This record gives sequence, C-alpha cells and structure tokens, in this order.
Amino acid sequence: MNKQLNALQLWLANQNIDGAFINEPNTIAYLSGYESEPHERILALAVFAKGEPFLFTPELEKEDALKSDWTHNVYSYLDNEDPWALIAKHLRSHNNNLSKIAIEKDFLTVGRFEKLHSFFQTASFLDITPKIQAMKLIKTPDEIKKMMEAGKWADRALEIGFNTIKEGISEEEIVAEIEYQLKKEGIKEMSFETMVLTGDNAASPHGIPGKRHVQLNEFILFDLGVVYNGYTSDVTRTIAFGEPSKKAKEIYAVVLQACNAALNAVKPGITAGELDKIARDIITDAGYGSYFTHRLGHGLGSSVHEFPSIMQDSDFVIQEGMCFSIEPGIYVPGIAGVRIEDCVVVTKNGCEVFTHTPKTYTSL
Amino acid sequence: MNKQLNALQLWLANQNIDGAFINEPNTIAYLSGYESEPHERILALAVFAKGEPFLFTPELEKEDALKSDWTHNVYSYLDNEDPWALIAKHLRSHNNNLSKIAIEKDFLTVGRFEKLHSFFQTASFLDITPKIQAMKLIKTPDEIKKMMEAGKWADRALEIGFNTIKEGISEEEIVAEIEYQLKKEGIKEMSFETMVLTGDNAASPHGIPGKRHVQLNEFILFDLGVVYNGYTSDVTRTIAFGEPSKKAKEIYAVVLQACNAALNAVKPGITAGELDKIARDIITDAGYGSYFTHRLGHGLGSSVHEFPSIMQDSDFVIQEGMCFSIEPGIYVPGIAGVRIEDCVVVTKNGCEVFTHTPKTYTSL
Repeated sequence: MNKQLNALQLWLANQNIDGAFINEPNTIAYLSGYESEPHERILALAVFAKGEPFLFTPELEKEDALKSDWTHNVYSYLDNEDPWALIAKHLRSHNNNLSKIAIEKDFLTVGRFEKLHSFFQTASFLDITPKIQAMKLIKTPDEIKKMMEAGKWADRALEIGFNTIKEGISEEEIVAEIEYQLKKEGIKEMSFETMVLTGDNAASPHGIPGKRHVQLNEFILFDLGVVYNGYTSDVTRTIAFGEPSKKAKEIYAVVLQACNAALNAVKPGITAGELDKIARDIITDAGYGSYFTHRLGHGLGSSVHEFPSIMQDSDFVIQEGMCFSIEPGIYVPGIAGVRIEDCVVVTKNGCEVFTHTPKTYTSL
Repeated sequence: MNKQLNALQLWLANQNIDGAFINEPNTIAYLSGYESEPHERILALAVFAKGEPFLFTPELEKEDALKSDWTHNVYSYLDNEDPWALIAKHLRSHNNNLSKIAIEKDFLTVGRFEKLHSFFQTASFLDITPKIQAMKLIKTPDEIKKMMEAGKWADRALEIGFNTIKEGISEEEIVAEIEYQLKKEGIKEMSFETMVLTGDNAASPHGIPGKRHVQLNEFILFDLGVVYNGYTSDVTRTIAFGEPSKKAKEIYAVVLQACNAALNAVKPGITAGELDKIARDIITDAGYGSYFTHRLGHGLGSSVHEFPSIMQDSDFVIQEGMCFSIEPGIYVPGIAGVRIEDCVVVTKNGCEVFTHTPKTYTSL
C-alpha cells in the first residue's frame, strides 16, 4: 500500500471514522497511483479504517486499473447499471457497519451525495477535504523532484516561445509552436491552457490567446506550465519585443521588484498574508495598487491550483515542503499588462524556485 | 436577453421558483453567452422569476465579462473576500424573499451548497439539472450549424492524422501534428484529449496515447474532436496500416455493420435502448458481445458528453433536434481494438451525420 493511502487509513482509525468515499480523480491518483479522467462517469476510491480499500471504475477502465500500480480490489460497473447500488453493496461488503463516512465536500456534488446518502441514511458524513489538503500540502522529496522536472519543462516551453517571436506572428501560432515542440519532446499535457498575450491583450490577467499579432514595442506575456509524471509547473514571464513605452517599462520594474521581494521573503514561519503584503505594498506604493487585481499566488502540486491561497489577510503559516506560486501583476488597459511568476518549494531557511528563465527585463 | 435565459426565467415563474443559482461554466456560457473557466474560483449566474439576472465573477474576470455579450449586472469578488457573503447579499438585493431556490445538483458541490444554504436556511432547494438538460437537449438551427462546423474540423483533424502515419512514428507525435496544424488553422481547443492508439494500445477503449510506434499490419484508432464557437465534435475512425490479421479485419467488419445499422435506425420515436440493442445484437451475434464494454453513445453539444446516454434498456425517446454519438467498438486484447463513431443530429425522418470521413475499411 502506498504511504499516502496508509497514512489516510491510520488517520481514519484515529478519528473513529469508518471509511472514506473519494471521487476526485486527482486525489484518487494521489492515493492509489491510478490516474484516470472518467468524464461524467464515476470513478471512486473507498478507504476503510479497518479492511482493504477498493477502486470502483467504469467497466471500460477496469483493465487499465488492474494494470496500474494499484494492488487491491477493482470493482466496475457497466453503463446500464446503477453505479450507486453497486457502490453501496461493495462498501457494505468491506465494512457492514459504516456509521461515520468521510466525503470530499469540495468535490462531491449534491446529486452524488444524495445518492450515496440514500443507501446510508443513518450514517453521519464528515468533510475529508481539509485532511486531503493537509496531506498534499507538504511535498515529499519524490514529489519535489517531479515538480523540479516539470519546472525545467516550463523553462523549455518559454525558450521555444521566445524563439518563435517575430513581428506579425499571432498569439495562437506561438501557442501552437510551444505545444507542438513539447509534444514531440514527450510532454503529453499542459497544466492549463497555454497563454500567450500580446500588447493590450495582456492587460487582461486571464486573457484568452487569439488572433492578435505580435507588434513592435510591446510586451508579450507567457503564462504556462506542463504536467510531468503527474505533477505540474506554472510560470509567467513578460518580455519586451522592441522598446515598450517608458510607462510600460516602469510597470515592469515595479512587478519585478514585487516578485523578487516576495521570493526573498519566503521561509518557514511567515504567513501567506505577509507574503502578499510585501508584494502588494511595493505595487501600491508605486501607485498601481488598484491594478493588481488578484492574490499573490496559489499552492500547486499534482494539480496546478491547490491549497493554500497566498492572499491578503491570510494568517496561514508557511512551512518547509510547501509549494506555491509568487505571481504579482499590474494590468493597466491601454498601457501594459505585466505579470512575473515563479513557483517555489519552501526550504529550511528560504525557498528554491522551480523555473530558472531570467526575470530581469529582457527585450528581443 | 438571450432566448435560453428568457425561457429559463419564464419556467422559473411558471414553477413558482424564486430564483436559480448556476455555477457550471458550460451552462453559464449557454445561458449568458459569457465563456470562462474560473478553475477553483467561483463563477455564478443568478436568474430570477422576477427581476434582472446577474453574473458573479472573480475580480480578475470582471472586465472580460463586461466586454462579453452579457448586458445585465456583473458583480465580482476579490481573492481575499468571502464570495458567499457577497453572493447572498446580491441575491437578496435582487429578490429579498427567496424561499424556493433551484440549484444544479449534478454540478454544485456539497461544500458550496452548504455555504449557500447557510445564508438561506429556511429556503427550499430544488434540482434544476433535469430542466437544463432538457433545454440543451433539442438544438437550435444555430447550434446545429456550429456543430456541423465542428464536425468539419474533426474531419480535417483525421485528414491531418492520416497523412502523418508512417512506420515508426509514435502515437504522441501523430497527436502533436494534428493539434499543431489545427492550432495554426485557428482551432484553439480540442473537445477532449486527442487519442491515437496503435495496435494493442487500441484494445483499451480509453487508452492514453503514448510512445508506442506505428507498426505495419496493425490498426490505428483515432478518437478526437474540436471545439468550434463553443460547440463540440467527436469522431472515431480506425484505419489499417498495411494488412492486419484476418481476425482483426473480421472485427472491423462487425463494428462497421453495427455502426451503420444504428445510424440507419436513428429517427424520432425510437428509444435510446433500441438503438443500443441494434448495434449490440450485431456484435453479440458475431460472438464479440463481451468485448463491447461501453454504451453505444452519448449526447453532445456545448459539452462533449451530455444527456442523453444511448445505452442498454433505456426507454428514453429520441426526438428531432437531438445530437448524440453512435460509437460501437470491439476490443480484444492481443487481436485488435476497433471503434467507429459518428455524431448525428436527428432530423424529421432520420438523421444527419456531422463527420464525413469514410467509414469503409481503409488501408494506408
């Protein structure tokens, strides 16, 4: 049994919780080693304080599950069967007295919960989301190694993107080049839709790359990441093509200062709110406070956005082994949009970044 | 106000439901015209029996929402604000007597529901999922036009893929070529992860394309689709490279017969279960029943998998304007995996397919 699953089982026993019902694919992969995206079908993992865990899969995934690292039971259902009656049957066959059941309130839908509940009407249901978050929060050396690799691939993606830039090329052509090269080099999946935003498009912090073409004397913003061995990276660089306006360059300098100050401040014991404030104060003092419209960062690991949130007023205490992004940005419509992001792992006395593409002002 | 939103508002009034709280991005796009993927943040749409609807977005998406086709209120929240207190405030400001609220039980998590519920403790909550499903089920001429275009792009994707095939090329290289060409031609998004499976890999119906290389005398299975103007396509073709075994070719002939028989049978009035049976009986009579491990098909539209399920024993009655896939398959480990899929729109007397790549046995 893998370490994480074992730890969860022990925790259930210590909390006097009879069993846990998990349906979030990413968490199932984390606990079972079996990776799958079941779309609208049900994939579930049941873990018990006492007794063997099981995976419950659509019939057409059963073979893959059996071939995976998972060594315990795999049950499956056909498309025309009621999965909930089967799930209830298997849950009872593993423990016929489930009176306290843990569920993921952040990921289980009301519809699925009502079905589960209908078979266990007298049971009490607790939220396991905080426990799963806490487990995922401190990364193991093996996880950090994978995230380092994912970071290297993000650097590679930026390199490809920078090499692609020329006057007249469209944002979507740059995206296509990046993903094409990466796929040829063995990367199957990006962490999220690759963003390449030029000029005014970059002034929207979550813009969609489109048909806008690269023009001289503008910034180009790249926000991207890859999935490597189940772990994600996430990086943002904003580089100049030619000579952006003085105002635009001033904005760059402020964001860079904010990013570096926050990165330098990361260490065990500081709070998420303090980190956000360090970056935000620099941006606010420079007069751009109202143009920094999002939190400073987010946790990442097997998913690209996870607990914790590095945001204003949070008294969440940073600890060694946590991984998260530091990504201040300033977006002034008509002038420039600049964001600079590195993800880090917290070390004993500071942090180590996953991406090494220079952050200093770069003009192509 | 767009037609769909108007229809929903009327329905709420007729059902004496005070308001609806929607958080599924695809449904929000369908009802509001505003497309966005908020990841772990909250994007919501509130619709009332009486009164103006509103969108509730993360602060960093507000600009985009205001620039979209949406003409009503847009409220937003900062990362460090409690979105639920704000949502409750705005809901009350639009209707200060919400006692019957519709929610999407299939898409609202237990965690989010509990937060909403905490602000409306005396309200009753109903499931709006079936109503939304019913609305999406019958496509408008405009939606069908978009799906026809999405189908053409799927044919184009297959064409690119077929042209890429040569001995020794890996599955992931073929995927990279397809997506690269499409991106360069303006397609931003695939409906799902493009599947190219060769030889034995294809014997798993939901296999992940990988490093396996094309070998002579095998089948290559392509399952892919694109998103075009918010609407999806989905197509599967299995083509021979060289001369697969006699047994493999026999499997192909059976799947093709099953696919054609089901396609020919589609018309208003037939049930989903009858369609599945037509294909399944052919496969079972040929001795491969236990190797057809999934339902015959699934609805599609703005999402690639939606209601209804074309499956055994379903008495769901097919009507004009519905769109779904017909995709029988036979997967025999060590011999061959074959699936053939077209998506159709049901017409007055039959159906029209969205993809026109030939289904007859093809050897490259």
